[in-house]
This record gives sequence, C-alpha cells and structure tokens, in this order.
Amino acid sequence: MSPIIHSHSFRVRYGETDQMGVVYHANYLNWFEMGRTELIRSAALSYRQLEEKGVLLPLTDAVVSYKKPARYDDLLEVRTIVEEITPVRLTFAYEIYRMPDEELLVTGKTMHVFTSTSLRPIRLNRVEPELYQWLELQQQGEGAR
Amino acid sequence: MSPIIHSHSFRVRYGETDQMGVVYHANYLNWFEMGRTELIRSAALSYRQLEEKGVLLPLTDAVVSYKKPARYDDLLEVRTIVEEITPVRLTFAYEIYRMPDEELLVTGKTMHVFTSTSLRPIRLNRVEPELYQWLELQQQGEGAR
Amino acid sequence: MSPIIHSHSFRVRYGETDQMGVVYHANYLNWFEMGRTELIRSAALSYRQLEEKGVLLPLTDAVVSYKKPARYDDLLEVRTIVEEITPVRLTFAYEIYRMPDEELLVTGKTMHVFTSTSLRPIRLNRVEPELYQWLELQQQGEGAR
Amino acid sequence: MSPIIHSHSFRVRYGETDQMGVVYHANYLNWFEMGRTELIRSAALSYRQLEEKGVLLPLTDAVVSYKKPARYDDLLEVRTIVEEITPVRLTFAYEIYRMPDEELLVTGKTMHVFTSTSLRPIRLNRVEPELYQWLELQQQGEGAR
Repeated sequence: MSPIIHSHSFRVRYGETDQMGVVYHANYLNWFEMGRTELIRSAALSYRQLEEKGVLLPLTDAVVSYKKPARYDDLLEVRTIVEEITPVRLTFAYEIYRMPDEELLVTGKTMHVFTSTSLRPIRLNRVEPELYQWLELQQQGEGAR
Repeated sequence: MSPIIHSHSFRVRYGETDQMGVVYHANYLNWFEMGRTELIRSAALSYRQLEEKGVLLPLTDAVVSYKKPARYDDLLEVRTIVEEITPVRLTFAYEIYRMPDEELLVTGKTMHVFTSTSLRPIRLNRVEPELYQWLELQQQGEGAR
Repeated sequence: MSPIIHSHSFRVRYGETDQMGVVYHANYLNWFEMGRTELIRSAALSYRQLEEKGVLLPLTDAVVSYKKPARYDDLLEVRTIVEEITPVRLTFAYEIYRMPDEELLVTGKTMHVFTSTSLRPIRLNRVEPELYQWLELQQQGEGAR
Repeated sequence: MSPIIHSHSFRVRYGETDQMGVVYHANYLNWFEMGRTELIRSAALSYRQLEEKGVLLPLTDAVVSYKKPARYDDLLEVRTIVEEITPVRLTFAYEIYRMPDEELLVTGKTMHVFTSTSLRPIRLNRVEPELYQWLELQQQGEGAR
C-alpha cells in the first residue's frame, strides 16, 4: 500500500541551462510544479479550476536534493506523489529521472497550505470535500480502495 | 531637444547565463522591464502604484537587437527613454551597456497599450493626466520645459 | 510552395504567469526556442548534437508581436518555419496558438548567425552541408522536392 | 563569535511575480545565488574569477522556508553567511528581508561541493588555499581574527 505515482515527461529547454553546461538548479522547482499540476489534473478538478474556485496552494517549504545534473534536450520524467495530506496542509514528493535510462537526477519535496485568494488559511475538506478525498486516496494508494 | 535618458545599473546573475557561456537572450526583455520600471519610478507615481490604481501597460510588440553578448557578473546599465507617447499607446526604447567600458551590447523597443486591470483599453490622459504629462515631458526632453 | 511548418505542443507553467494573471511576455522567446529546437530535431541532426559538433546559432535579432494573452495551463502550439536561410544567416518565424480553438496569440521572428563555439562566424554549407540542404528544403517547402 | 553577515539589496522584478500576485517561489533560489555571489566578491577573488580558474560550486541540496510573500517592486535584502566549510563542502545560509521594515520573508540554505570544470570533486584548501582560509574566517566571524 504505497502512494499512487503520477508521471509527466518533458524536455530540458536551452534557457534552463547555465554556463556550467548543465541545468540551473532553480529550474527543478518549476518542474516540481509541473509534476503537481499534472497530478491534480488527474482529479476531476484541474489546479486552474481550483484557483478559479478560490483555492490556492502557496508553498511553505521546499527541499531539493541534486544527485546528477540534467542537460539541454534531455528527456526527463517527473514522478509525483502526495506524501501527506491534512485538512490544512499538503506535502508532495518528487523524483526526476532522465529517460530512457531511468537515471535518478533529483529528488525533492514541497509543503503547501490551503488558502483563499487573499492568502488566508482554509480547510480543504470543507471547501472542496471531493478533491480532499481524492488527494487522500492518492496518498493511501491503490490498496486503500 | 532629445528624450530624457533614465539609467539603471545591475549585475548579471548566474541563472541568466546559458550553456553558450553568455546571457540567455530572453533575459534582456526582463532587463528592459527593469529599465521602464525605474523610469516610471522617477515620476511621482511608481508603476506598482499605477497598477494598484487599475492601470496596466501590457506589451503589444517587442524588438531586440543583439550586438555583443553579456556575461555572468558583468555590470550592466540599461538606458531607457520614452520614444513615443499618445493617449492610448506608449513606446519605450532601450540600450544596454556593459560598464565601465560603455560597450553597447543590446538595443530594443517595447510597445504598450494602456488598459484597465481587465485588459480593456483606456486613455491615460483621462485616467492619469499628471502621469501622462510627465511621460510627454520625458519624450520631449529637457529643452521642452 | 510554402515553407514546411513544424508544430510542437506544450502547457503554460505557473511560474510563467505574472501578477497581471497572464503569461509574462519574455517567456514567448523561450517557446520560440522550443519551436526551433523541435524543428531542427526533425533533421537527422539534433540541435544538441549540432552544438557538440561546434556549431552555435546565437541570436542577432528578435521580434515579437503580442495579440492575445496566454494563461496558466493553456495548451499551446508553436508553429515554426525556416523563413530565410543563407550560408551565414538563418531566420525562423513563429506563430503561437492556443489549442484546441486555434486562437492566434503571438507571432515572432528570430534571426541567427552560424558561429563556432568561440562565437566566430562560420559558413554552415561548408561545416554541415547536409544540415544546410535540409534547412533550405524546409524553407522551400514540399513543392520543392 | 558568529559568522560574518554579507548583505545585498535589490528590487523584485515584474517577471518574478506569478498570478497569485506574489513572487513565484523558485525565484528565491536565484536571490540566494546573488547573495553568495556578493559574499564571495568580498574576498580577493570573485566567483567569476574562481570559475575562470577552474573551480565550480555545484549545489547538492537546497532548503527554502517561505514565511511571508514578497511582492513586485519590494525592496529586499538578502543576508548570507558561510554556515559550514570543509575542504570538500560548503554550506551557505540565507535570510531575505523586506526593507525598510526588516520583515523576514524567507530563510534557506544551499549545500555545495567544490569541483573542477568537468564536475569532478576537488579539495579547495589545496587548489585555492587563500580563498579557503577566507571562507573559514567568514564562518568563524569577527571574534576569530
């Protein structure tokens, strides 16, 4: 019984490299964001629709561990899971792999709170109970069904 | 009688370079934006305050000409002028120099319209007459006073 | 007889928006770069391999025309053509559409020179004659075959 | 006896905001990089010169804690210290304040290894003994002199 993994593939852009000849380290946070966007898209509700309904997920913490560098035009895959979910907080964990050899390049986590558009804390289980249950299910994994 | 030049200095950041070992070309548009922000700051009204009052300046066109590359940690200066101003449109022109040798690296222009926060066109001379006059004065230059 | 169009689809990332609620204008240059990368990938030789062989394509000019704003999570398509090719210069033209309604959002061009890794001009037809011919064919279009 | 604090001020750029109306979270990593660049500039040797001598400082880990959001045009100050230094590793710690009210917005750390330009580990105390001693002094603080 482990969390459901959501995968998303993309290529490294030229502007994402730096003069070291590898990807500039800040870009991995953008890719984590793509990972969680695609995870949420799997629900009935996209993250964009979620924002339109007035629910934001600002970050409170981010952690990144760089193992091997990604390079221009590499085909990468970000794998995202819901690591922890409570009515007020959400933690995603990420792994970024180079494909097709599946070399693990970077791991990380981002911690979020649920807020209104004015950045005030809200309880997701009250505001969007269906999404909340869906996120719980992602965290508990297939075995929980 | 030439437009008043507004200068702003800054250093090239590491993440702004790419694997060619020079600044990635898209960053010059960010620096143009710094140039016009600093130009408008010289008025009584900052661009941030302008937005808070409901006036936006979305771009309609941008032109960039790359002469020589900027490199990491270069000290640069962006020089900005109001090239053209009408009640509905505004054109800024920019030159980016490497300092202190004043080597000209990049030139460009950005064309803007004045809109409300819902991106509908507005006439600046009606909504913000003082700023409009100030911008006209920047375009006409010292001799016009 | 018109140039061969190379299409590439992608989604707008959250970090590509700004506080106007739309895509920050500099990002379209990144997307143009994705467009030409994918165009060149259609040749026998990828742009990355081209760089590894010592051929760079630095920009000399860029022109962007903004018609309608792209928004977070929009599915976009960049369509790229070789507009002009000579032994020393290359011009790409781009159109960015929102999908699936095919609304045209942005058009633009980028002009490039062929250089060595030390940024000295080279003649592509001598250094990489096969790629040069392939680029000419893209410019001339299907009818030229 | 505490580490020497290196401060550097800058303004938030428009393109650094996102549609939440605040700074996009990945940008703080760029600002940390500005902080350590300015710290190293205080030494006899700039980071750029360091790279030209063949010494790189790739990241192995980054940690960011977001307390309050920064906004467009905010005047910010990044305060950087050398938290830990060994012949093979270096940890910087950062605090980002909004000025002039000195509100603490973000804290973080980045961990680095010393490598050659081919990204192989090196020992800084052998390759650049003067810089190594200077970094030790920054970590130990004024009282250590």
